[in-house]
Amino acid sequence: MNLPTSFPVTTRSKVRRLPKRGSAERADIYAILDAHFLCHIAYVIDGQPYVTPTGYWRHGDRIYWHGSSASRMLRAQASGLPVCLAVTLLDGLVLARSGFHHSINYRSVMAFGLARRIEDPVEKQEALDAYVERLYPGRNKELRRIEAQELKASTVLGMSIEEASAKVRRGPPVDDEPDYALPVWAGVVPVRQILGAPVADPRLSPGTPWPAHLARYAEGAELDEVMTEMAKGPG
Amino acid sequence: MNLPTSFPVTTRSKVRRLPKRGSAERADIYAILDAHFLCHIAYVIDGQPYVTPTGYWRHGDRIYWHGSSASRMLRAQASGLPVCLAVTLLDGLVLARSGFHHSINYRSVMAFGLARRIEDPVEKQEALDAYVERLYPGRNKELRRIEAQELKASTVLGMSIEEASAKVRRGPPVDDEPDYALPVWAGVVPVRQILGAPVADPRLSPGTPWPAHLARYAEGAELDEVMTEMAKGPG
Repeated sequence: MNLPTSFPVTTRSKVRRLPKRGSAERADIYAILDAHFLCHIAYVIDGQPYVTPTGYWRHGDRIYWHGSSASRMLRAQASGLPVCLAVTLLDGLVLARSGFHHSINYRSVMAFGLARRIEDPVEKQEALDAYVERLYPGRNKELRRIEAQELKASTVLGMSIEEASAKVRRGPPVDDEPDYALPVWAGVVPVRQILGAPVADPRLSPGTPWPAHLARYAEGAELDEVMTEMAKGPG
Repeated sequence: MNLPTSFPVTTRSKVRRLPKRGSAERADIYAILDAHFLCHIAYVIDGQPYVTPTGYWRHGDRIYWHGSSASRMLRAQASGLPVCLAVTLLDGLVLARSGFHHSINYRSVMAFGLARRIEDPVEKQEALDAYVERLYPGRNKELRRIEAQELKASTVLGMSIEEASAKVRRGPPVDDEPDYALPVWAGVVPVRQILGAPVADPRLSPGTPWPAHLARYAEGAELDEVMTEMAKGPG
């Protein structure tokens, strides 16, 4: 299937605030979606907005997420509710010479679609396996298989991206020209999400090694780089 | 003013999914809000949900955020729109012996309120100054003052927290009892937001030092700890 290289832009998805930071290019949007696994999903129940953080994974132009069947969010979305999904990577604090020009460096995506529940058990199981593989490639084959009641207790939601936009800010502050002469420290304090040393479960079965399939989760690695590498699939 | 130690809990704010992870205690909620500065705000326009990442700051039971007057989000919210604000700190990946029990360690808050625009210019300026002071205590006095047209171009939104809940997951995986015997590595991969070495603006006025007021922004510091310390105020 040949997908267009950019998503449609409507009044809903158009980047209005500082549009030069925006993009509807598929490659830009996928690069950000593939750099993380935690999103915020907004939805409406009886006119009231809600936003919930949740893990997600992408397959083509579809985004999936999951949770218990008991979850209010997933119950409400199962009927095909409009959702807005945001992924935001914080890259730094931007310090300018005036309060007004202080900013944040970030990479973000806002994606719109209709969330629907995956009803077919086979498709549901494949989706849950895909989530484990997305985060821990090669791990599924070491785990015990999912049991029938677990599959039943799980809800998987998916949406096709109808519209999406990426927004990115990088680099130093942009100050008013006369302000550059001020003796005020200006620049960027980078922020990174870093992996710590793995903490084994106190109840780990004795002699169980740190497995090869987790080699990318090395202490000090940057989460977005690990996620991006894994999204490329097996080398 | 003596505020109750917990926020009211209604059908809107009740933690339904894994309620043992939830809290409506004011201290729990403030501790999470004070550990970061980036939130996701959900709102509704014509039935469509939107979620936008934005910087925020807290003062008592009020949360503020800002942006350009041109922003769709802030225009829509200025009339007093219901919003849901989420702050989420990712603390780790939780690897279990079955796909079903994989999880995420996190601290999160969901807060509900009516967002209103701060119209009074003095109050608006004080709020913007408070944002700079929240992130960079002592910095305002080194900056040039905000100009009239900047104040006009800024929009500050604020809401009183009507209801809120915190939700936290910590610690090792919780597996089904028989699974503990499996020879599968299980445990936690911690994730931390760490500050990098400051990158001075290439146009920094020569001889401008890294200022004392930024001492907390030391390379390698954890963002949530820096934010928490600063939220305690001077001394």
